[in-house]
Amino acid sequence: MDLTNLHWLSAAEAAGMIRDGVISSVQLVEACLARVRDVDGQVQAWAFLDPEHALAQARAADEFRLSGQPTGPLHGVPVGIKDIIDTADMPTENGSVLHAGRTPSRDAAVVSLLRGAGAVIMGKTVTTEFATRTPGKTRNPHNPAHTPGGSSSGSAAAVAAGMVPLALGSQTTGSTIRPASYCGVYGFKPTHGLVPRHGMFQLSRTLDHVGLFARSLEDVALLLEQLAAHDERDPDSRPRARVPYRAVVAQEPPLPPMFAFLKTSLWDRVDGDAQKAFEELVDNLGDRIEEIELVVATDEVLEWQRAIGGAEMAISLRREGDEARDQLSPALRSRIEQGRAVRAVDYLGARANIPELNGSLIELFEQRYDAILTPPAFGTAPAGLESTGDPAFCALWTLCGIPALNVPLMQGTNGLPLGVQLVGARHRDAQLLRTARWLVTHLEASSTP
Amino acid sequence: MDLTNLHWLSAAEAAGMIRDGVISSVQLVEACLARVRDVDGQVQAWAFLDPEHALAQARAADEFRLSGQPTGPLHGVPVGIKDIIDTADMPTENGSVLHAGRTPSRDAAVVSLLRGAGAVIMGKTVTTEFATRTPGKTRNPHNPAHTPGGSSSGSAAAVAAGMVPLALGSQTTGSTIRPASYCGVYGFKPTHGLVPRHGMFQLSRTLDHVGLFARSLEDVALLLEQLAAHDERDPDSRPRARVPYRAVVAQEPPLPPMFAFLKTSLWDRVDGDAQKAFEELVDNLGDRIEEIELVVATDEVLEWQRAIGGAEMAISLRREGDEARDQLSPALRSRIEQGRAVRAVDYLGARANIPELNGSLIELFEQRYDAILTPPAFGTAPAGLESTGDPAFCALWTLCGIPALNVPLMQGTNGLPLGVQLVGARHRDAQLLRTARWLVTHLEASSTP
Repeated sequence: MDLTNLHWLSAAEAAGMIRDGVISSVQLVEACLARVRDVDGQVQAWAFLDPEHALAQARAADEFRLSGQPTGPLHGVPVGIKDIIDTADMPTENGSVLHAGRTPSRDAAVVSLLRGAGAVIMGKTVTTEFATRTPGKTRNPHNPAHTPGGSSSGSAAAVAAGMVPLALGSQTTGSTIRPASYCGVYGFKPTHGLVPRHGMFQLSRTLDHVGLFARSLEDVALLLEQLAAHDERDPDSRPRARVPYRAVVAQEPPLPPMFAFLKTSLWDRVDGDAQKAFEELVDNLGDRIEEIELVVATDEVLEWQRAIGGAEMAISLRREGDEARDQLSPALRSRIEQGRAVRAVDYLGARANIPELNGSLIELFEQRYDAILTPPAFGTAPAGLESTGDPAFCALWTLCGIPALNVPLMQGTNGLPLGVQLVGARHRDAQLLRTARWLVTHLEASSTP
Repeated sequence: MDLTNLHWLSAAEAAGMIRDGVISSVQLVEACLARVRDVDGQVQAWAFLDPEHALAQARAADEFRLSGQPTGPLHGVPVGIKDIIDTADMPTENGSVLHAGRTPSRDAAVVSLLRGAGAVIMGKTVTTEFATRTPGKTRNPHNPAHTPGGSSSGSAAAVAAGMVPLALGSQTTGSTIRPASYCGVYGFKPTHGLVPRHGMFQLSRTLDHVGLFARSLEDVALLLEQLAAHDERDPDSRPRARVPYRAVVAQEPPLPPMFAFLKTSLWDRVDGDAQKAFEELVDNLGDRIEEIELVVATDEVLEWQRAIGGAEMAISLRREGDEARDQLSPALRSRIEQGRAVRAVDYLGARANIPELNGSLIELFEQRYDAILTPPAFGTAPAGLESTGDPAFCALWTLCGIPALNVPLMQGTNGLPLGVQLVGARHRDAQLLRTARWLVTHLEASSTP
């Protein structure tokens, strides 16, 4: 057993090996910590990481297993947590100097769920300022001169660079899908309300989602299976029957899936390189894909997204905006001002579009398509660290609250990753992951001579 | 059997007699129609009433029963429906010339539930303009020079005048409790979301409730038992275990209830007459009642109520406000303008107070009190028909979405009815009705020499 490469194991592989006693959690966490030492000087994915505390959890996990007690599905596996998600044993600073040194007294719902599944909470990953647009320190692990995307910058980069197999982020516009595409990992935004948000910094009740990062589809399903839960403290959480995500993603779809290729009116602004890659992908899928157009204009969607997100953000950051304006970035200050100016009727009008939009998408999904296939972003990670890139390709799916997945399938001519975004029907998260697996398998088969 | 007074039967009595074949639904409905002919020229409770159609339903109910098929709990019993609640077989005009002749294609959820219980849908009762403040034609059945209250004017008056034993209304501020007090009947606003609102004109998703009118507590419970149901088409409806409301209201409370007497800062504006009546009532209850104060100021509550109700109304009436301003009353026009000016942050800030308010009320209910006892209005029905009176005493309970009941217990020196408002804990609707029965029984016993 080569212990020096354990950090590239998938979570499912690692959990299996720990369960079977092939490796220990301490060995796995040590490999991940070694990887952090090797690469994080450049990547800077972590807002907080105490190696001793991570190892202490790993030791406890190993002792627990050796005591013969039954272990959870992530027993001994390290997970990175975006620094807007509360942890009782580590600071949670929300990417702002205003919350520097903030130490919550309780774990967020998702952190409790992870601990219940046996996970080691590795550390806190870098977020942009309050999960908005002003970047943190993280760089793209594929090229440090490029942004990792945001706002879940550290989570995407940490998973991509092999520092942890799994990480949690969030998405209010495109904060999971976009960095996943830029960093070349799977990023999943589940159906709104499926994963409880209690204990996560609330930017927008209507738009906030917990985001999942992993390097394999099986790992996305494994992680989602731990996190999909009812929690009354999240007002949008509802009791639901348990779905065996891992089992569904492993199934062959009953029929080969049918994809809807959606360029949107943003297509003209997509990099030529990326346009070409998408066109090849569509060619490759032949009669399994059809180009579609939506009735709704992207500009309108972005306007609704701004009204809802802006007003709700202005409420969430009311105290900060009133009492500590100077310590907010100028960009955030100006977004708060814009949010404060939104009229209630425009806010409510924008929200009223959500069920209508979902109604038209349900038809599309029920009548013909298993998934919409569309770019996650305008191209590969932009050069420079002053912006985290444009989330416009993610806004509609976030607004609708339907599942969206970045599949790290392609590469730009610059060598940087380029993802494919798949979007599925509300509460068909498991089927979307299964459709994605079909796509990956199909493309692997067709590219093998 | 004296068939000329059947219209004064309670719904429970009438349903029992129909079930046992003592009277027919046709006889009951004929008696109610005769009462309408006698008194409605003066009261004017009905926006739509087709005697032939009501009798046709009654005949069908009688035939169904005679066929030996099992019948529902309201089999053959006529119910009045506020004219903002859709009926597939009658117009629903929402109290506005703008919707004159509007004929919905489907029954509202509550109308379907009533038909399922065997009820005869008697007709549509007068509402104020779009269930807001501009009065309809109805007069107080106790004195035609006085308002019946609103917005459920016709429902309260029809039940009070013996034209139907039951009626449905609605409450967005005080539209059920206030007219029930003015007209001297039971009026009940259940917990928010308990009774589905699909197919009822939506003024405000946050504040709208279906309201119930009856002349006995048993009838309130009987009616609620038919209406408390989950309906996915109402976004605030949730699946819940069935509660046997009638059985609970018939029970003796495990302990004599404890009441919290709440004057609020509005007390100084309460009629001297009503103040005196309340003080006597409190004396009568002795050590079963304690005066309390709330931390929240009534002015603040009214401001939050205006922000939420105003903005949501401005959205609901957007088209009418844009395209047909001239056909709205000046008062409604001006309220729409005010609603349009509300900022989203103020709207959201107001809404954020609801869970906090409920938190503080839960403590009060869990620690000591079975019900809050407070005025339903500033006194008996004001003279004049140009206003439906002031709903301020109802605003907090509507905002909190907790159950509120008008108990027609008292009289002003002018001979007009004066109610007592009881308020209970969220989702303890059944217990509140039981507490009310204790109160009524206790006062009857103590007033008997």
